[in-house]
Formats: sequence, C-alpha cells, structure tokens
Amino acid sequence: MEDKFKRIKAFAFDVDGVFTDGGILAVQDGELFRVFDAKDSLAVRMAAMHGYPLAIITGGRSESVRKRFKTCGIDAEDVYLGSRAKIDDFRDFCTRYNLKDEEVMYFGDDLPDIPVMTACGCGVCPSDAVDEVKEIADFVSTKPGGKGCVRSVIETVMRHQGTWKLDIDAYKKMF
Amino acid sequence: MEDKFKRIKAFAFDVDGVFTDGGILAVQDGELFRVFDAKDSLAVRMAAMHGYPLAIITGGRSESVRKRFKTCGIDAEDVYLGSRAKIDDFRDFCTRYNLKDEEVMYFGDDLPDIPVMTACGCGVCPSDAVDEVKEIADFVSTKPGGKGCVRSVIETVMRHQGTWKLDIDAYKKMF
Amino acid sequence: MEDKFKRIKAFAFDVDGVFTDGGILAVQDGELFRVFDAKDSLAVRMAAMHGYPLAIITGGRSESVRKRFKTCGIDAEDVYLGSRAKIDDFRDFCTRYNLKDEEVMYFGDDLPDIPVMTACGCGVCPSDAVDEVKEIADFVSTKPGGKGCVRSVIETVMRHQGTWKLDIDAYKKMF
Amino acid sequence: MEDKFKRIKAFAFDVDGVFTDGGILAVQDGELFRVFDAKDSLAVRMAAMHGYPLAIITGGRSESVRKRFKTCGIDAEDVYLGSRAKIDDFRDFCTRYNLKDEEVMYFGDDLPDIPVMTACGCGVCPSDAVDEVKEIADFVSTKPGGKGCVRSVIETVMRHQGTWKLDIDAYKKMF
Repeated sequence: MEDKFKRIKAFAFDVDGVFTDGGILAVQDGELFRVFDAKDSLAVRMAAMHGYPLAIITGGRSESVRKRFKTCGIDAEDVYLGSRAKIDDFRDFCTRYNLKDEEVMYFGDDLPDIPVMTACGCGVCPSDAVDEVKEIADFVSTKPGGKGCVRSVIETVMRHQGTWKLDIDAYKKMF
Repeated sequence: MEDKFKRIKAFAFDVDGVFTDGGILAVQDGELFRVFDAKDSLAVRMAAMHGYPLAIITGGRSESVRKRFKTCGIDAEDVYLGSRAKIDDFRDFCTRYNLKDEEVMYFGDDLPDIPVMTACGCGVCPSDAVDEVKEIADFVSTKPGGKGCVRSVIETVMRHQGTWKLDIDAYKKMF
Repeated sequence: MEDKFKRIKAFAFDVDGVFTDGGILAVQDGELFRVFDAKDSLAVRMAAMHGYPLAIITGGRSESVRKRFKTCGIDAEDVYLGSRAKIDDFRDFCTRYNLKDEEVMYFGDDLPDIPVMTACGCGVCPSDAVDEVKEIADFVSTKPGGKGCVRSVIETVMRHQGTWKLDIDAYKKMF
Repeated sequence: MEDKFKRIKAFAFDVDGVFTDGGILAVQDGELFRVFDAKDSLAVRMAAMHGYPLAIITGGRSESVRKRFKTCGIDAEDVYLGSRAKIDDFRDFCTRYNLKDEEVMYFGDDLPDIPVMTACGCGVCPSDAVDEVKEIADFVSTKPGGKGCVRSVIETVMRHQGTWKLDIDAYKKMF
C-alpha cells in the first residue's frame, strides 16, 4: 500500500457517502444540501495548498457542492456535477492535468463509483461503503463517510510524501 | 420469505422513519425538510429503471418530498402527501397500476402504517419501528430508518428476481 | 409512579433537549431551526386528539417552533416563546385551563426547567438531561432528548389512562 | 489542573469541532450553517452573565456564527470570523480586555488552533480533536465537539470559582 500511496499525484472524490454520511437535506425548491466535515475540509485545503490537482465527480447537481469546494481550493471546472458515466469525467480530469490513471487516488462508496475505482491508481472507500465497492477497493478506511475517512487517508498519503505541513502564511492567502 | 420476495411487483413507502431517521427540520415559514440517504435513493432509482411501479404514501405535506422522489424516478402522481387513511391511497395506487395487494411491498414504521402493512403482500419495517408495527410486520430489517433499511430490502428483492444490475446507459438517461 | 401517571390531565414541555437532541441550526438571518422526531410528534397529536391540554414553554424565540406544534394540535397561545421565568408561564397555562399544578406533567432537561419540574405533578427528563435536573426529576426516561423520550412517556401515561388509541377518522380531521 | 482552572478570567473558542461535531451545512448561495448545542449555549450565557470576557476565533466566515453568539451574550466585535493566523486575533482580544495569555482558556480541535492552544493559560480540546492537538492540549475533555465539551469544561471552571449559579432575574434581562 505504501508504494501506491507514494505514486499518488492527485486526488478525485465522489461526494455523497464520502465527504458526507450519505445524508441529503431536501428543501422546498428541490435543492439538496449536504453536511460536510470541517476536518475533512482542512485536509482538502492542505492538498490544494501543496499543489495536488483535485477533482469532485458526483451524480448530484447542486451548485452548493461547487461553492463548498471552491472554499477548499478546488476550481469550478474541476467539480463534475450530474456525472453519470463517472469514468468519462475521470478521464477528462486526467487529460487536463496530464495525469496517468495510476497517479490518481479516487474515493467512492457506491455502485456508480466502481468503474473509476478499478481504473485509478488507488481506489479508496469509507468503512460504510456498499459491499460491492469494498470488495474491489484498494484501501478500505476504518472511518465512515463524512466522519474522517477523507482526512485520514489524505493525511496518510501526504505524510508518506512529506507534504503534511500547515503553512500559516500560505493558509492566509488561500481564500 | 423468499416466496413473498419473488411475488413482489411494486414497492410503496411511508417516508418519515423509513427513508429518514424520523428527524424533521422545522424552518421559519412552517415548511418541514428531511434528510434522505444517498444509498437508499440509488436503490429506488434502480427499481425505477427496472420498471417497478413505486409509490410514496406519507402523512407529511411538504412539496420537497415530491421533488426529492421525482429525482429518484417516482412520478408526482404516485406521491401521496397528507395521507391520513393510508389504506385508501394504497388501494388507489394498486388500482391505477392494476396490482393486487399481495404484489406490493410496503415499508412503514408507525401506527398509521399498520392497515397497509397488514393488507399488502409484504409489510417491511426498519429495526427502530414502534413495537406495534414490528409485531405485525412480515419482515423487520436489521437496519434503522434512514440508514440502509430501504436499500437493503429493495436490493434483496431485486437480487431474488435477478434485476439488481446498474446499467450505466439507462442511468445516464434517467434525470 | 403509576399513581402520578393516573393523575395527569395535561402535558407541558420544554423544547431543546426534550423534543430535540439539543441541536440548533443557526442560519444566515439569525433564525434558529430545530429537528423534531416524527414518532414524538405523533404522540403529541394523539394527546391532542384525546383532549389533553398541551403547552410548550421554551427559552427559544423562533416562530418555526410555534408553527411546528400547530401541526401537532397545540394552539398558538399555548406556545410560550422566549420564556425566561418558566414558572410564570407554567402558572399562566394552569390558570387558563383550570389545572392544578399536580395535574400537569412537565418535560425539561436543563437548569431553567428546574422550578417548573419541582412544582408540577410529575417532572420528566430525558436520559441525557443535566445532572441537576436528573436529581430532582420524578421520572428519568431511558431515552435521550429527540429520540423517543416524549413518545415513550406520553404513550405510557395514555396507556395507563386507556386513551392510547389511534382513531383514523379523528386523525383525518386533525390538520 | 485545578490551579489552572482557578486562574482563568476569560474564555476563547474555535467553532467547528468545538461547539459543533464538525458538520457544516452547505446551502445554495454558498453560505455555511452549523448546528449548535443548547446545553453548550446555556454555559456560554452563564459565563457572559457572570462577566467573563468571551471571544470566538474561527476560520469560518458566516455571519450566522456572529448572530448565534450574540444571543449567547458575545458581542459582535469579539467574534473573529475568517481568522487564519489565530494567534494574532487571540492577542488582539487579550489586549482589548487587558488580559494576560495565561488568564485565558482556549478551546480548539485542529491544526490552526495549535499556536493559540500553546500560548494561552489552558488549552482545551474535545475528545475527538486531531491527535496533534490532543498531544499539546492542557486538558482533553471526555466529551466530543458539539456534544457537551464546552458545557462541561465551562461548568467545571465556574464551579471552581463559585460562579456556576443561574440567576433567573439576570437571565430575564439577557436578550
């Protein structure tokens, strides 16, 4: 696993069940809101500050997701909303950043994530992913979605690469 | 139980305590919002993609519920809001889709669900349903409301019937 | 305890930590929203349908609370918002409904509830109330706030009094 | 620890992961909402009523946070939003209230809190803080963020100082 972690140059993520516990708040006008975790969010910011390309690939369509990740340092064009054939969006991200499949870590938790998880360099899932995903994952986190899975795995990869350091000056400039 | 699962041609659901943990967010104008689970939602979409008639029968009156289920493939006229005598709405659904009572699986968790649960082909409840419902249920899920009960039971029925397959092309066209 | 339960003719409730787990959602304009439980709500409706006077006595000031309880059968004038000296509001409720202190059950969980809990006929608290409240409560529920405490205690009282029955026809007319 | 508790004259707090479980609700317009705990809030009010200077020092930028704490007795100018170099804001607070570092208790849970936690008189963290914070904290609460950590520590300090008393008349005037 350490070898896989050292090869990683970029991170891509599903949203529901990965950054969240799967809960989706349905409000009056049909919009769907999600609860994100502050510690997960700091990890994404740390990766952004250290220059890792980052992508969100979600079936959801809420612009609130795009806005949330902007404050974490992910550019609007790297947030793929309404993604159905996620592998196509994953390949688009790799092409734009000149990345090989095996250089990208992808986080997913349910059936639509399986094609990307098997194609990427390291497929990661939270402890409460569905069984079909756990079976094909390279790494099953001990933490569930929305409760530290993203933080703990990004932190582990960045520690392996010597990049897990918070530079307050860089952090000040971030957003 | 397998026999009952094989006879099922359609699914009908209460909302609060089944798709949710029973939590209802009360906001300023009196609207009530609910948290749905992404994995449950995918199961409903899978059933819709494979042509199972689907109904929501809830005492709640929030249009947010209708909108939420539209994105899961349930038509607006199959979402019964403000349902008090749920058995009447259940019979209306059966008539419109030419279904016999025993061909429909119904998910409920509290007293107003009992008449439908005893009339339908297979009454299912989450692990945290009230005792009166657990006593008359045909099947008590090991999972609580809002945390996988719907997903796990729909998946089990569809596996028994050989329909639990995610077709990415059909999924693309869905919404 | 059974004697106390049999004497109860009315119910009064704090909100935060009783009907909820204490969580208060703070939104942009300063409004505070709360998550209520569907099973607790049905119990309040059952009490309303059987004619028990009901009051809400809360330090909170959100009109969303008044609207929420209206759909449970509690009239607007029986919802005391911004209550600081709760005992005064409790006495006002008793006077208006011609109730003696000892005929009312009150649910509270924190320091401002103590004067009413000691004055009323039966002071009830959830399992996660603060220690000072647990010490003076007549009855400590095995369930925490927002997760069945209200339902289970109302149901117990109404079963003792033979009134725990859901009449679908009355329910239809309710709201 | 008792000595440290007795020296405390003021309290300062991070928000996410301290007053909350770290969950941040992302809504349509990019605003972020948080769930606060009613029992924690009462403790902050108790400290305000007894005249302890209070500050919020958070990386978040939502005005909903400022509004929330206003109802707990914290003035708008004592809520530092968008704080990146938290130590600067901490020093500003100390200067304005003529406090020495060692007279202030600070609550934090993640990497950006470490400089303040090591500088202040008593650095406190919830049980689910990140490991780096737990290692340098003076006091690790047995309670997680958003679920009683703030209440239990403020209460302990105020009991040591003989100020943990709810005066209903003062409470009436509060807001």
